[in-house]
This record gives sequence, structure tokens and C-alpha cells, in this order.
Amino acid sequence: MEDMSEHPLYRMLHPRSIAFWGASSDPTAMGSFQLAQMLAMGFEGAVYPIHPREKKIMGLPAFAHVKDVPGPVDLAVFVLPTRVVPEILEECGMAGIRRVIIVSGGFAEMGSEGKELQDHLAEIARKYGIRMLGPNCIGVVNPYVKLNTTFFPYDARPGFIGMASQSGSFVTQMFTHLNHFGLGFSQAISVGNEAVTDITDCLKYLSLCPKTKVIGLYVESIRRGRDFVRVAKEVSKRKPIVAHYVGGSESGKRAALSHTGALAGPDELYDGIFKQCGIIRAHTSEELFDFCFVLGTQPPPAGNSVAVLTHSGGPGAAAADEAERSGLAMAEFSSKTLEGLSALLPGTARMGNPVDLTFNRNPNDYAQSIPAVLLGDSGVDSLFIYLLLPSHRVAQVITSLGASPEQAANMASDFVKAQASLVLSLTPRFGKPVVGGSYCMREDQFIRELQDRGLPVLPSPERAVKALAALSRYARAREALLSERGA
Amino acid sequence: MEDMSEHPLYRMLHPRSIAFWGASSDPTAMGSFQLAQMLAMGFEGAVYPIHPREKKIMGLPAFAHVKDVPGPVDLAVFVLPTRVVPEILEECGMAGIRRVIIVSGGFAEMGSEGKELQDHLAEIARKYGIRMLGPNCIGVVNPYVKLNTTFFPYDARPGFIGMASQSGSFVTQMFTHLNHFGLGFSQAISVGNEAVTDITDCLKYLSLCPKTKVIGLYVESIRRGRDFVRVAKEVSKRKPIVAHYVGGSESGKRAALSHTGALAGPDELYDGIFKQCGIIRAHTSEELFDFCFVLGTQPPPAGNSVAVLTHSGGPGAAAADEAERSGLAMAEFSSKTLEGLSALLPGTARMGNPVDLTFNRNPNDYAQSIPAVLLGDSGVDSLFIYLLLPSHRVAQVITSLGASPEQAANMASDFVKAQASLVLSLTPRFGKPVVGGSYCMREDQFIRELQDRGLPVLPSPERAVKALAALSRYARAREALLSERGA
Repeated sequence: MEDMSEHPLYRMLHPRSIAFWGASSDPTAMGSFQLAQMLAMGFEGAVYPIHPREKKIMGLPAFAHVKDVPGPVDLAVFVLPTRVVPEILEECGMAGIRRVIIVSGGFAEMGSEGKELQDHLAEIARKYGIRMLGPNCIGVVNPYVKLNTTFFPYDARPGFIGMASQSGSFVTQMFTHLNHFGLGFSQAISVGNEAVTDITDCLKYLSLCPKTKVIGLYVESIRRGRDFVRVAKEVSKRKPIVAHYVGGSESGKRAALSHTGALAGPDELYDGIFKQCGIIRAHTSEELFDFCFVLGTQPPPAGNSVAVLTHSGGPGAAAADEAERSGLAMAEFSSKTLEGLSALLPGTARMGNPVDLTFNRNPNDYAQSIPAVLLGDSGVDSLFIYLLLPSHRVAQVITSLGASPEQAANMASDFVKAQASLVLSLTPRFGKPVVGGSYCMREDQFIRELQDRGLPVLPSPERAVKALAALSRYARAREALLSERGA
Repeated sequence: MEDMSEHPLYRMLHPRSIAFWGASSDPTAMGSFQLAQMLAMGFEGAVYPIHPREKKIMGLPAFAHVKDVPGPVDLAVFVLPTRVVPEILEECGMAGIRRVIIVSGGFAEMGSEGKELQDHLAEIARKYGIRMLGPNCIGVVNPYVKLNTTFFPYDARPGFIGMASQSGSFVTQMFTHLNHFGLGFSQAISVGNEAVTDITDCLKYLSLCPKTKVIGLYVESIRRGRDFVRVAKEVSKRKPIVAHYVGGSESGKRAALSHTGALAGPDELYDGIFKQCGIIRAHTSEELFDFCFVLGTQPPPAGNSVAVLTHSGGPGAAAADEAERSGLAMAEFSSKTLEGLSALLPGTARMGNPVDLTFNRNPNDYAQSIPAVLLGDSGVDSLFIYLLLPSHRVAQVITSLGASPEQAANMASDFVKAQASLVLSLTPRFGKPVVGGSYCMREDQFIRELQDRGLPVLPSPERAVKALAALSRYARAREALLSERGA
């Protein structure tokens, strides 16, 4: 199967119609939040609220039973009390619904009694051939079809990160986080207790999604180890996977057990599994998305050496320090490169690596000419560039040269766009990864331009370099997988 | 000396008048930027531009020589070509100026010839009793007296972080970074090549500043090891010091050498020095300010154990995992605490540590009652609380209950303020540190309220817990210093 639309999860993330349980005229009910969010996102398919008594919910006709709904239902979403879930699931099965998202909790995460109830759900699902997600999950997001079953407004843009998460929060509460970088999900799936659909299924599905350039996983435990390894090894050859695993410490393990009933394993075990599959491990939630930003936009480098370009000594030194700590090698420049640099650098500049310009004579030197010299060196596999070009400062200079404030603002904006284009042209031209770091973020036009047009810019030199090192690890792992016998 | 105003650096950071070299009618000159910034900040003392030919600069009368200036000069700032610096310094000495900031580069950082020139500067300074800062520095910032000699607009608020930095960028380019957290500098000093004034002097000075609650250092090398240790040990007993050291790796060391001519030492050496002095080491620039936020606002905990409070399983598990990795212990609750919790938690909640509410019945439970139960437990030394209370969502609920959008917005804002007050009252009441983590940042009113009123909220659970662990390390180190013989 190489076509996403043939995968059993496809219709769950591309439903034409949804039956929704748990919304009502009580606006403070969780289900009401979720339905309100779904409608606010502008989902274009049919939505059928189901409610035992109410006739109209949020302006939509409500139905007492799913069998009363006047059309076919691609997806059912339950935000219901635990005890009624089996009965309603059965009802769905009888009505021919084949995809159900169970948001309700109170199952395996609550102990053995809950686990029994959950097994019963799985049995019903099997009986009817229902592809079930959850229970104890928060559902799915597919911004490309304006689908959001969660209770959080999806305010990020449609993006390239495919996410499968054993925590609903690491879907919903990432919307804001991604927005801070101009990033977005391609599709995101909260798997909850994984009674039927697990993270391995999602991995396979996301690998088929053409909008997904990188797959992010939040993992508390992997249930089907062998299948996971088999699938992940295949996927890693074509698409990078980044995983945040929290079950490796004793405390993380205990927290995971009570969260989704997951049985976590020791760090070393998971490190081993991830390495074997070419999965890049993130140690924090920030790293997860930092790495996704870089691995989802930049080509894998041929080797481990990095050039650091800066006009500020401190950030350059911090980048160099982090490069070594993260396992990159600071590139040694060829004599041709040094020659090329000496023609471009002012007298106060430093020609070694980091290249520290100290100040900019011609802005194009920094955005284009010097990076081109560095990336043209066969001993340089990747480039970190420290970025700082505040529009207000550019406008200040232009104003002081006699332009009106309005003219200056327009000219500054055009200038910043052009500078961004120069930086963005480097990767296509040299086929090598470029990552930016800056303490300015999206309040600054330059950074917005770069991030929105595909250059990863992270909020410090260290984070950027660490993510570049992750990309380099992925490149090595991918090579190894591709050269395995039978690959 | 216990009074800041008696320290030789006091008048450099509280000048009543400034003579400024290097600004001109050329708005693109570095010196022009710096003077423009100084004026934009609204410095209230006298400012005298000095220029060989121009008579008026940025609306101010300019003078050909400093001796022509019509009043006393507390501080001279040079943004001049390298070769003229000694001559002008001599001129300042003769005119009785006793404090000079030399921004100009081209000295020790350029090799032995530059080093000789720099030694010559130091000689002149000694001859006249001039307290010199730099060369190759970016000067100072004191937002409380609207002083900013750098070329960057200081747009953060006056704050509580005193900074001494061997990189100008780790002063200027932090303005934006601090702004992302509602933080600010109390005073900040870029020491450059440290020909006369070094980081040890600044440490002593900042320790005397009443607005400075924590001292941040960016270090490439420590020149006077013994003095540094002596001063830092004394300071650490009263005020926390956080240091970011980049010279410990081979690459960092080489970068530092060419940046400020600093001779860095191996990681182990600096780790040892820092430990001995009770200095908390940060490994990245983000950590430096994360740690400063927590160490500058929260009391040192009595022990190593932390309670984690969350309503989201994933962030709770990530916090627990990070706590253990950072050297904190997840607190074991007393039976009284468990009893107290069981009265407050819904049936789906988890009573262990992390306490995972799963959902909020009464918001005051989360902001006040549950934290009070936890902090009342003598086995709990500190609290991490995961924060999420988007105002728009509160307003949504209020609107749906019949309020007009305007009423709802006002009521939501009041509600959020009141919730923040509850969280903020915990530390004064229990004398234990509380740190928040959230993926929402200052776009959210709740987070702004908390940060601006002194609760550190960091952009992920992991960063918050890591900073709490740093505070715990400081508490242990401080105790050890205080119990040393003769302390």
C-alpha cells in the first residue's frame, strides 16, 4: 500500500460526515467545547449532533439515535460518560459506522476494572470491523480539511509535521507552540489508550501522507515492539521520525502508567529501539519540534562538519561550543575558502570557524556571498547562520537618509524580503542544510519571512546547532538503513 | 564596602553627564547608532558629542575637544577607530574624566600587536586613575536611569537581573529575549577585553545593587581566578549567580580566543571553580535566563523534593521525567496530603505525584486549594505547576452564559487576574518555591499576569523543572558556603 487513501485511518482524518455525541446546550460541557471548536474551524462535511433529548445543538438539528441521521456517517466521536460508551459503540456498529473516536476516559488508565471495560470495547470494534481511536484520547486534527475534533482552537497554519501522540496535550497544546515558529501539523493523531489503533498504525499512515515531511512521536510506551521496529525502519528510509520518550526514568515510567496505562521500559531499551530504526530521539518537548522543523525542511548532510557564520562573537562561540557537545565537527576550511573569505571580510573579522564578521559592510555578503563561499567548500557539510536584521533598524537608516517614514517602512520591508530570499536560495543551490538561530522571533519580519518560507530559525544558536546535529544523526542512520541487506 | 554608590563602577552606570566620541551626521556609523539609541532611551543627564569638525549632532551642540565641554563629564564613551583611541584617552585623562567606555575593537582580540596597544591603554588609564571598560565592548545598560550606551533599543522593562558579559551580544541581543518573558536587566555590563575592569569587578559591584536579585554571567575565560573565587563565594551567600561558560569545549575555546583574546580552560576546571563558589552553571543562553528568572524570584528550597501539579497527563509525565534527570526527587505524599487531595480531586484524577487533575471542577482548586495541600506537606520542598488558562476560552464560557462579548471580555480578564493572584499567594504563604510551565507565553493574559508579578513561567514543563533543579542546587551550595568555617 503506497496510497494514503487506502489506509484504514484515511477516512478518520478525511471524513465527509461526523456524528457527534456529548455536545449539548450546556456550554461548559467538554463535548460542547469540542463540537464548538469543530464548527469554528469550518469543517465542510455534514455534522450530526446526537443527544437523547435536545433537538437543536449549536444551530444544528440534533438526533436521538445515530440510526435517525439522514445520511451516511464516516466518523463517530464520543465525548460520553464511561458507562454508556459500550452501548453507543454497539449502536454505531449496527448503524454501519466504521470509524469511531472515543474521547471518554475511565478505561485502562484507571486499573484492571477499566482495562476489562476497554477490552470489551475492542471486542465490539472487532465484531463490527470498526477502526477505533482511543479511548482516553483527544481525537484528530487535519488542518488541510479543516478538521479538529479537540477542544482547542487550531490557530496554527496547515503544516508539514505529522504527529502521533500518546498524550492529547502534546497535540492540542502544541498548537500555540507551533504558532510561535510559523509551523503547523499536516495531520495529528492522539492515540490515547491504543485499544485498537496504536502509534505504529499512525506511523505507517503518516508515512503515506504527502503533506507530511517529518513525523513527530510522543511516546510513553511502545506496545507492539516488533511491528513498530519493522514499520519505523521502512519509514525512516524515506521520512525522518523524531520521538520524545518520557518513560525512561523511574518517575516518567510511573507517570506514564497512570496516564495511559502504558508499561514503559528503561531508557537504554528505547534508545536501542530508536537507533535501530533510525528514529531521532528528542529529550524535551521543545527539542521534538525543533528537530521536526529542521528534519522536515532541510536535506540530510553528507557528513558531520558544520560552518558557523556570525557577526556576534558570543553567539558564535556558544554555537561552536554546542556543535562540539552535540557531536558535530567544526569544519576546517580549505585554502580556497580562506582566500574567498579574505576578499569579503573586513579587517576586524575572524576567518576561522566560526566566521565572525564583527560588522557587515555589505548585507549581501552576509546573506549570500560568504555563505556561498562556505557551502562551496567540500569540507563543509552544513551551515549554521546567526540571524539579526531588525526591520525597524533598517527603516531607521533609510529614514535618516531622507525617506519619509512610510517610504522607509516599505523599503525596509522589501529589503528584508530580498535578504531572506538570498538566505533561502542557499540550500537549493548547494544541496546542503542551512539552519538559522536568533534571539528575535516572529515579532521580527526577517524571521517570519525565513520561517514561513522554509528556513528553520530557532530561538538560540544552541537550539539551532543541536537540531542540525540531530539532522546529521538522521543522515547517518538513514544511510545505514539504506545499505542494510535487502534494503 | 556595602554601598553600591561607593563602588568605582557606580558612576559609570549612573553618570550625570556623558561625552560621546564617534557619532556624526553619517547615520550609518556605528557611533551614530549608539548615540541615537542613548537619546531615544531618554537619558536625563547632559550628553556632549565630540567631533573634530561637526558643530551639531542629532540636535545637540558638538565639541571639537572634550576640554571645550561646558560642564563636568562623568563618563566618556569612545566609538572610534583603533589608532586614535590612545590619544583621546590621554586627552580624557588630562581633562579629568575618570570613567571611560571603549567600544572600539582591534586590540588583544587581534593578536600580539593589538595586545601591546591595549596594554598601552591600560597604562594611560592607570596614570590618570581612569576606570576603563573594554576595549572591544558594547558598554552598559541601566534602565533605572534610562542609560543605554549600546546600539540596540532597550525595549525590555527595568528588571532584577544584573548581567556581566564577556560578549556584547549577550547584553544587547538579550533585550528581545528577556522581553519574551517580561524580564529585564537591573544593570548590564559588557566587559569586552577586560583591560582594566573585569568580570570579577562587575560581580562585586552587582552584588551591591539593591535592584539586582540574581547575577548572570557570560564567561569565555576568567582572568583573575583567585579573586574571582573569593568574591563569588561571598556573593553567593547572599545572591545567586548563574554562569554560562562556553570555553570548555575545544571549539568553544578557540572561538573565545579570537573573540576577546580569552584563554579558556577545560570544562572540568570551570565546573570545579563554579561549584566551589556556589555558582550555578547554565549550559545554554536560554538556560542562563531561565535559571535567573527562577533564582531571582523564588526562595531556596529546604530540600530536593518536588510536587508536580498538572491537568494534562503528557506535560505531567514530561515534567516528572525531567525532574529525575535534573536531580530532583519526586515527592512522596504523606497520608494527610493524600486525604486532603482525595477531597479535592475528581474520580478520574490521579493522586500520586504528578497530581493529574484530568479536568478542573472548580478553578480555585487548581490555583489554590490543591497547591496549598501539596505545599503544606513537609515532604514537599517545591512545586511545579503546569499552567493553562486561555482568556479567550474563559470569555467563551461567559458569553455562552448570556453575557455580551464586551462584558465577557472584562469578566474573563478579572477572573484571570484573580486566578493569578491565587497562584502568586502560594510562595509568600508557604515560603517554598513555585515555578510554572506553559506552552502559551505572553500572548496569553494569564501568563503575562504571572510573569509580571514575579512567578517564573517557562515555555515548557521541562525548562521549568530544570530551572527548579538549578534553584535546588543553589540552595545546597549556599548552605555549604554559609556553614564553612569563618562564614
